[in-house]
Amino acid sequence: MLAPPAVALDLGLRVLSEAPDASAALVVPQAPVGEHTDLDALRRLAADCDVVTFDHEHVPTEHLQALEAEGFAVRPGSAALVHAQDKVVMRERLTAMGVPCPRWTTVRDAAGLEAFAAEVGWPVVLKTPRGGYDGKGVLVVRDLDAASDWLARGEVLLAEEAVPFTRELAVLVARSPMGQAAAWPVVETVQTDGICTEVIAPAPDLDEGLAASATEAALRVAGEPGRHRRHGGRACSSLPGGSFVVNEPAMRPHNSGHWTIEGSVTSQFEQHLRAVLDLPLGDTRPRARWTVMANVLGGDYPDLYSTYPHLLAHDPALKVHLYGKTVRPGRKIGHVTVSGDDLDDLRARAATQPTSSREW
Amino acid sequence: MLAPPAVALDLGLRVLSEAPDASAALVVPQAPVGEHTDLDALRRLAADCDVVTFDHEHVPTEHLQALEAEGFAVRPGSAALVHAQDKVVMRERLTAMGVPCPRWTTVRDAAGLEAFAAEVGWPVVLKTPRGGYDGKGVLVVRDLDAASDWLARGEVLLAEEAVPFTRELAVLVARSPMGQAAAWPVVETVQTDGICTEVIAPAPDLDEGLAASATEAALRVAGEPGRHRRHGGRACSSLPGGSFVVNEPAMRPHNSGHWTIEGSVTSQFEQHLRAVLDLPLGDTRPRARWTVMANVLGGDYPDLYSTYPHLLAHDPALKVHLYGKTVRPGRKIGHVTVSGDDLDDLRARAATQPTSSREW
Repeated sequence: MLAPPAVALDLGLRVLSEAPDASAALVVPQAPVGEHTDLDALRRLAADCDVVTFDHEHVPTEHLQALEAEGFAVRPGSAALVHAQDKVVMRERLTAMGVPCPRWTTVRDAAGLEAFAAEVGWPVVLKTPRGGYDGKGVLVVRDLDAASDWLARGEVLLAEEAVPFTRELAVLVARSPMGQAAAWPVVETVQTDGICTEVIAPAPDLDEGLAASATEAALRVAGEPGRHRRHGGRACSSLPGGSFVVNEPAMRPHNSGHWTIEGSVTSQFEQHLRAVLDLPLGDTRPRARWTVMANVLGGDYPDLYSTYPHLLAHDPALKVHLYGKTVRPGRKIGHVTVSGDDLDDLRARAATQPTSSREW
Repeated sequence: MLAPPAVALDLGLRVLSEAPDASAALVVPQAPVGEHTDLDALRRLAADCDVVTFDHEHVPTEHLQALEAEGFAVRPGSAALVHAQDKVVMRERLTAMGVPCPRWTTVRDAAGLEAFAAEVGWPVVLKTPRGGYDGKGVLVVRDLDAASDWLARGEVLLAEEAVPFTRELAVLVARSPMGQAAAWPVVETVQTDGICTEVIAPAPDLDEGLAASATEAALRVAGEPGRHRRHGGRACSSLPGGSFVVNEPAMRPHNSGHWTIEGSVTSQFEQHLRAVLDLPLGDTRPRARWTVMANVLGGDYPDLYSTYPHLLAHDPALKVHLYGKTVRPGRKIGHVTVSGDDLDDLRARAATQPTSSREW
């Protein structure tokens, strides 16, 4: 999704692709094949670029540090990215900055977990510090027994209180190396089985004070002096009573910002390119009163393309984005976006999915 | 500009590119190099595609006929495309259909031109039937002497009366093989030295009856039974008194429709892909009250990129499209688009050009 704005802005994109037929390689002419864990592959890519950036957080921190030591421009830099890579480092830093967090600790054994649960109560949310996404690497446990498999690994886990949130919000901000910052309206994200299925922009009936303080916190973290500035989404949970806690920061274009492709004057993808290249940032105003984005998840019907014309015919105003991925049940294989004035209507239209035979 | 919607819709684009570093080859991974006049190159491309289409009209008609005879899907087909390739064929057909045209004839010599001028008056507009664009292949002559060079070639020329138009309009419509049709709002195009420099969508203060009849004529031509349906822009000139004549039809995405990328729910490029693949057409409604597109013309300042950040900084809401072309004075090397409620403001902002050192 970085390719279309790169075309418009005439920016020469190169992408390190895990296979010749990976999604990105199908749409970017210069897509050398290599693993993101292979420092030599990263180095060869960097040597051909003015700036290196990411579409996920899983590039090893030490590889990023090596590239930086060799003089390559890595944005966001390793010192910032580690906060999106390691959830314990992230919690330590957010807490030190005074950003609202759920109560948390690190645990290594049953005694540690029991002590934490005695303080915050069951259930407790366990997270692996690295590697999780879309509900993976997260386990909600109601007692010690439920945690036994994870604790048996003997690794450090992040333990967080289970926050009784009323809904989940996402704040998307961009900040460029020269310090310019921009924020989009705060959106509501709807999760189903731990996977984001729907985003409503802006978040309906959101208290203005809460929106302002969540945005302020996101901009503050993004612009923290002494660290690399960075661009990214920031998920947070709205609590009863109008407060919030920060859930998980990301430092790249994020699923919660896909609505901006059509819904905002500047999409998060164009903005990411502008930000990492230190170009002036674009206008983040919405183009419509409401925009609803729904993820297309792989369903029980592996042949996406026989239902695809029906989806286009069903709603000529739906903007369809398909990622060229193999259909697997539950996998994010695309998204649809629709904008307008009637939120209930838009949500119903965005919810029409092309992947299930039962829909047609 | 077809590449971004092809990415979104997960359509595999291949482009026959005149050079490995041509604009299209920089953004489409599968871009074999070849000339559009080389039938073997066209055949190899077609063999790798479900449908073949065009971004200009200069592919020889006989090559298209050969591809069709070999069973390849060519859209629009040669029988339709010839009307955009040959201006005499186009005038004959439009006249037969009863579509308003300026008075016209074909001339071969001074006697023929003199007889036509005696009927319609000087000046007369001479056009080469094939190969013209952006004012090339068009000559406005005020007397026989001015036409002597062109007449000396001994080739058939199209002669048209010089219509005293008040402004130029463009009607963009799409029609798919199964017969679905869609039209965008009629726009005004502003020409400078024969080159389109600005497009205002919708055309300001346009008489509703004129808009309806111009759109109806465009849809009728696009959907004429017995011919291939096709997609394309249609330029026409508005005459005093609320009538119009059709100027030049095109059968591909057109400069007068670039505003649709941000200004309409479905861009002309996405629609072209949908139309030639016989997918359901998309919604053509505007996303804003006004959208203004201005072409970026090569100026006296060959280094576009040193002024580019200034342009982005100057107006964060301006959508900038650069085509990756070498800067030459007067060449269309990109365009900018801006949408909003205040037309005068939008026109002033769109007119800011990044190519002249004097602007900064």
